[in-house]
Amino acid sequence: MLKISLLSIGDELLIGQTINTNAAWLGAEISKLGAKVVLHSTVADNKEIIKSEFDRLFVLSDIILVTGGLGPTHDDITKVTLCDYFNDELHLDEITFENIKSLLFKRGRELKEVHRMQALVPKNSKVLSNSVGTAPGMLFLSNGKYLVSMPGVPYEMNAIFNDHLKQLIIDEIANKNHNVVSYLTIQTGGVPESTLEEMIGDVNTFLDNKSSLAYLPSYRGVKIRLGVQESNFEKCQIKLNGYLEFIKSKINESIISIGDENNLETLIQYLKDKKLTVAVAESCTGGLLGAAFTELPGSSEVFIGGELTYSNRAKVERLCVLESTLEKFGAVSQETALQMSENVRKLHNVSVGISITGIAGPDGGTPEKPVGTVWIGISIEGENIAKMYKFGNNRAINRELSVSYAINELFFRLKLN
Amino acid sequence: MLKISLLSIGDELLIGQTINTNAAWLGAEISKLGAKVVLHSTVADNKEIIKSEFDRLFVLSDIILVTGGLGPTHDDITKVTLCDYFNDELHLDEITFENIKSLLFKRGRELKEVHRMQALVPKNSKVLSNSVGTAPGMLFLSNGKYLVSMPGVPYEMNAIFNDHLKQLIIDEIANKNHNVVSYLTIQTGGVPESTLEEMIGDVNTFLDNKSSLAYLPSYRGVKIRLGVQESNFEKCQIKLNGYLEFIKSKINESIISIGDENNLETLIQYLKDKKLTVAVAESCTGGLLGAAFTELPGSSEVFIGGELTYSNRAKVERLCVLESTLEKFGAVSQETALQMSENVRKLHNVSVGISITGIAGPDGGTPEKPVGTVWIGISIEGENIAKMYKFGNNRAINRELSVSYAINELFFRLKLN
Repeated sequence: MLKISLLSIGDELLIGQTINTNAAWLGAEISKLGAKVVLHSTVADNKEIIKSEFDRLFVLSDIILVTGGLGPTHDDITKVTLCDYFNDELHLDEITFENIKSLLFKRGRELKEVHRMQALVPKNSKVLSNSVGTAPGMLFLSNGKYLVSMPGVPYEMNAIFNDHLKQLIIDEIANKNHNVVSYLTIQTGGVPESTLEEMIGDVNTFLDNKSSLAYLPSYRGVKIRLGVQESNFEKCQIKLNGYLEFIKSKINESIISIGDENNLETLIQYLKDKKLTVAVAESCTGGLLGAAFTELPGSSEVFIGGELTYSNRAKVERLCVLESTLEKFGAVSQETALQMSENVRKLHNVSVGISITGIAGPDGGTPEKPVGTVWIGISIEGENIAKMYKFGNNRAINRELSVSYAINELFFRLKLN
Repeated sequence: MLKISLLSIGDELLIGQTINTNAAWLGAEISKLGAKVVLHSTVADNKEIIKSEFDRLFVLSDIILVTGGLGPTHDDITKVTLCDYFNDELHLDEITFENIKSLLFKRGRELKEVHRMQALVPKNSKVLSNSVGTAPGMLFLSNGKYLVSMPGVPYEMNAIFNDHLKQLIIDEIANKNHNVVSYLTIQTGGVPESTLEEMIGDVNTFLDNKSSLAYLPSYRGVKIRLGVQESNFEKCQIKLNGYLEFIKSKINESIISIGDENNLETLIQYLKDKKLTVAVAESCTGGLLGAAFTELPGSSEVFIGGELTYSNRAKVERLCVLESTLEKFGAVSQETALQMSENVRKLHNVSVGISITGIAGPDGGTPEKPVGTVWIGISIEGENIAKMYKFGNNRAINRELSVSYAINELFFRLKLN
């Protein structure tokens, strides 16, 4: 298999000022191509440390993908470090310089010395054009292995990867007859990982020695990830399907979804096909459910709108929840959730109304309704159901969980899973 | 200074199935304590690789914080690897076992062999109790340096860090007279990093050799991060303030905020103090602005609610936007944004109405109104203003930017910045 390592450069990653989404994005893209990310390392903008990482990663992998440190200011030192490491020197790349000039012109900005410096690249590197920014990528070949340096700005890195590196990885796998690696994820719900392992049994009895199975617990339930390694994707698929059938025979009842994890896409396509429309009524989530429905393009046929009723006043005035209900049962109650989902369905004149009302925390809990208590209501013409969930103490997680369970609940109600 | 390295274990991080928020969280917490994260590495669940990382990180740092691989299933191998590395063997820790039993009892689950295994720890390690889960942390001392192993589940890791490691780090810094490291971040807007550097000038002319200044560009504008190193936090603060005054004298006009980056907190406190209330009317953001206002606890005095009007129908029926306006000017227009913000203010009977209507993309753009065109309206009694923004092609970024500019715009209107 083709081994790839990732090296992220930048203090902002080490001190937690920036979450490293680049590494996750690259990891996912590389896995789709059948290569294997064997290691990821993050270091500060420090020449000596970066060079020693190059040494180490060249031993451990076939391709090193470096991100960050290519900006025009004094603190960005990747380019000089590359020259130093590969015993190279900078020269002006005319095509890059033209790109920079035309980009600045489009943005109405003046050309300065610092922009010319962005067009300087090590002589022996191959320039990988950047279609959305000024800093190009640079490819180095060293003893049959590759090192690629890219800017750390996510959309610029994504563009360079898509325009140049995808094909490089595909070609390397083909030319050097690497096995491809492929994964399948099964989302389960309601059963702890140790019980799942008991039900499925010892992996050594059904997995071959190039395959793996991992249990990934999270607050949404345990994911089971299968990994296989074969000479091509077809063979991977056949093997994965075999494992899946076996696992299904053991834990079918606990499986929520298989494969692509973005079940929102499936949901929206289904609603589109059935010409069903949706509106939401949100209290503690404050808009997160609406944001989830509109995350993907093309949801406008399905998602009509909704009511954010964070306050009781808004629940009464904008959603027509009865004041007597709020007084008697409280805002976080089955009765309120039911009225919210039914009323938002009627007020927005849609097929499905979904409501969320809960105590996200950290304050507002009572012994009877502790922090983490959330009611989710779904109203589909003629049928109104609300269910209670008890999550934990973390506000952000409670809000995310509420959205994720509301979507899961709609799946169940539409018999989609 | 006290050097800390982070080691994350788990294939799910390498293949991008999970974004490594643990590393960012730890990085931020450690920085607050004045220690320095010098390196972060992510590796697969592979005994040999993990052991060679231990070797390497012991050379580079004083404390190694390891997360992941402590679950009860076969794929979690951190504990046996630790025994192997430290030439130790597992024994049952009675206190941990009692904790696990009481946790299972509370959750109504049966005690199984696998749970007893969770209470097995290396004999020579110090157990760090886990107040929110079954897997304890383990502390090893080796030649005056520490290695700590913690579960990868974020809230369990957070609890163990807060309960045990914060104090360890504080004590180490004090006992060994380490310098503390401290940072200050300045958020700027509207000026590219190269221009900022030109305005501020050569860092060597005003920074001492233990201080650093970095430019961090993002789509929200460039952040300037100052870092200093002194014998205590007071001295750090004095030095940072000096640098800040200097930078202010150079780029004052471009500074949006200083220090704590969550300016939402400042905003909500201000609105609370002034007894101002807010409602939002969202189209392309589908709830993200409401979600931002309710992200922090305690926003309920300020944030009343809002209207999600993703469809034109909802804009007319629920927000009373005139059909003639939508026909003549379109949903993404100054006129529509103005009506949305004014009407949501009146309908929710609040002091401030904020509206967002735009073309998030990737479809729906026209030559006149390309993808990325967003109108943001703010209505404060007696004054309605809407401004147009032109963002890029990325749907997710356009939505986030819309929220962030809407909040910035409110800052400007309230003269808070």
